[in-house]
Amino acid sequence: MSPLASTPKQPYYAVIFTSLRTHGDNGYSDMANNMVQLAAEQPGFLGIESAREGLGITVSYWLDLESIKQWKANAEHLVAQKLGREQWYTSFRVRIAKVERDYGF
Amino acid sequence: MSPLASTPKQPYYAVIFTSLRTHGDNGYSDMANNMVQLAAEQPGFLGIESAREGLGITVSYWLDLESIKQWKANAEHLVAQKLGREQWYTSFRVRIAKVERDYGF
Repeated sequence: MSPLASTPKQPYYAVIFTSLRTHGDNGYSDMANNMVQLAAEQPGFLGIESAREGLGITVSYWLDLESIKQWKANAEHLVAQKLGREQWYTSFRVRIAKVERDYGF
Repeated sequence: MSPLASTPKQPYYAVIFTSLRTHGDNGYSDMANNMVQLAAEQPGFLGIESAREGLGITVSYWLDLESIKQWKANAEHLVAQKLGREQWYTSFRVRIAKVERDYGF
């Protein structure tokens, strides 16, 4: 089980990715694991949280918009995005949001 | 299975609530369902998406910060927040974020 992401003092950015999957794996699980590993190596990456219960939600955290833009343009990630649109998701939404406040324990 | 939230043109706000649960239900499921219903009745509520896979992620969407503030101060919600801190969560984080961009299909 993943821990909660440990993010720095705000402001920072969140990419909220919500999706519904097609039936069957079709290479999805391996690619999803690879993308988490690859994202974590990118400049400006701060953390990631993910859960699927029918609906899937992955929130990745980033230092700034430029980091998000670079990650979206990553060559391997572009391949994954294409397969996502063509094969893995019946629907998805990406929301890019500036985290202005956080608290918890 | 919940659908993806249908949100309006940005900007709007997201409350990203991530948590790890204690063992046992202890009234959690009923309260969680009640809170989703109650949130949906609040002014400024735009939608909600939720999944738990060990780590739980609930993202609720709101028109503005004032709506979020009012919901946080709701009397029944305050009871749920107290029980959450005392009984249901080993850790959690609330992130309040302004959605600046979204896309998908």
